[in-house]
Amino acid sequence: MEKRPKRYNELWVTEEQSENMRLSLRTSNVLLNGKSPYQDILLVETEEYGRMLILDGAIQITERDEFCYSEMMAHVALCSHPDPRRVLIVGGGDGAVLREVLRHDVVEKVTLIDIDEEVINASKNFLPTINVALGDPRADVRPMDAMVYIKAAKKEFDVAIIDSTDPVDFAAGLFESAFYRDIYSALKDDGMAVAQTESPFTDTSVVKSAFREMESVFPVTRMYWGAMPTYPSGMWTYTIGSKKHDPSIPQRETPDNVRYYSKQIHTAAFVLPPFLRDLLK
Amino acid sequence: MEKRPKRYNELWVTEEQSENMRLSLRTSNVLLNGKSPYQDILLVETEEYGRMLILDGAIQITERDEFCYSEMMAHVALCSHPDPRRVLIVGGGDGAVLREVLRHDVVEKVTLIDIDEEVINASKNFLPTINVALGDPRADVRPMDAMVYIKAAKKEFDVAIIDSTDPVDFAAGLFESAFYRDIYSALKDDGMAVAQTESPFTDTSVVKSAFREMESVFPVTRMYWGAMPTYPSGMWTYTIGSKKHDPSIPQRETPDNVRYYSKQIHTAAFVLPPFLRDLLK
Repeated sequence: MEKRPKRYNELWVTEEQSENMRLSLRTSNVLLNGKSPYQDILLVETEEYGRMLILDGAIQITERDEFCYSEMMAHVALCSHPDPRRVLIVGGGDGAVLREVLRHDVVEKVTLIDIDEEVINASKNFLPTINVALGDPRADVRPMDAMVYIKAAKKEFDVAIIDSTDPVDFAAGLFESAFYRDIYSALKDDGMAVAQTESPFTDTSVVKSAFREMESVFPVTRMYWGAMPTYPSGMWTYTIGSKKHDPSIPQRETPDNVRYYSKQIHTAAFVLPPFLRDLLK
Repeated sequence: MEKRPKRYNELWVTEEQSENMRLSLRTSNVLLNGKSPYQDILLVETEEYGRMLILDGAIQITERDEFCYSEMMAHVALCSHPDPRRVLIVGGGDGAVLREVLRHDVVEKVTLIDIDEEVINASKNFLPTINVALGDPRADVRPMDAMVYIKAAKKEFDVAIIDSTDPVDFAAGLFESAFYRDIYSALKDDGMAVAQTESPFTDTSVVKSAFREMESVFPVTRMYWGAMPTYPSGMWTYTIGSKKHDPSIPQRETPDNVRYYSKQIHTAAFVLPPFLRDLLK
């Protein structure tokens, strides 16, 4: 009988980044494999990016690269608003953006509205570097539908951060002007709102439409971008709508312990490559 | 007998971006599947990124996103050198960087040295948007070992562009100070050299060592970065060594038809996120 070489277990998790593209990551352990009322929840330990949360097949957050996203979601708005005391986070139940927001001492209270309590619990149980702020006394974490919450809020917030999943299913409405109008009403007279708005390579039409929808609501709308390795194409856009302040100008001190954001990165991130600038015309 | 749903062919090409990470792309057609004296050559038509050249399993270039890389390899050095008449390209047999270099009218002659003639031929046969400059009268395309060629060249070039494959096998030497010293000698007294130096996420030690090696040779060494979707992590670094001019300051006009590069992107690309800046300390 022929001798076979020793074989090893090959456990991989695969994301369908599009119908035509897949990213696969070697996985040493599955920590959670469940289903909430809203979505499938998978939490795995990967060799390349550490622990990784996957919702309905889409990579949401990894321990190793989340700082690229979390810092750019939080600090651009918070550093260009002169006095951001009240902050709203829509989605973001893992707590990473919340952790970044609370690095700003000026922030008095953060309301985090995530529809899925089980995402919050998954982070609490398995993501120790990410969940650190979920129990902070300044954090008001509420598992409920943000659309409902926002409708009742009037001129309450200085900054709103829309940390949504991809625009499918229950999150689709978070990319539409009706929702941005409610956000607008929930903001104070000099408030600003920032949203993750996907990749110009794999989600070209979303980038374009999210920008237009926000532009139809806010007097000042700007796009910026950054690297985000585990999101499709690695190039990620963020759109910021502002009632008054210019979001491209950092006005406040950079918080400590940043790894992606800096005052210089803030300014540089608003420089769009011509192909992306042209997309928004 | 149970009826099975109609099935479709699933043809995928997979890159092992690391031992622990794989990118797979749906493929409609294999145009070339061969072997040169130096490497395996695979040329496929992908749904997501158009035609794609793969050497020894590593994605080199795709029709859809190569502009991100080719423009950043060519225009940063060429726009910060005041009078780049003579240009050297090491590798780059596909012709994409050459095409960008020749957008600069001031360039009189480009010498392109790629060890593998079959890569040049693959591009000539199958990559019409990429190969356009390979027959240009200002292009001197030579299939030979760049290490040998460079040793004989003294103060000939204004700009050298090292468009190498990953630092393994015959390309490993292209990331070492001995090679950078030969490049230094081949440059005129105010020349500069730029090299692709991989990803800070998937090739952390290469980024670090390539920078140090170049820094040990050139009086001015700077790193810049850009988005590059089909390269691992999508965040790519470039290192530029200069004998005299500051490479971070664009001095000349931006060529027409750029899609990634602009004068503002030139400056912004030198702003490194703190984690990358700290890596180089």
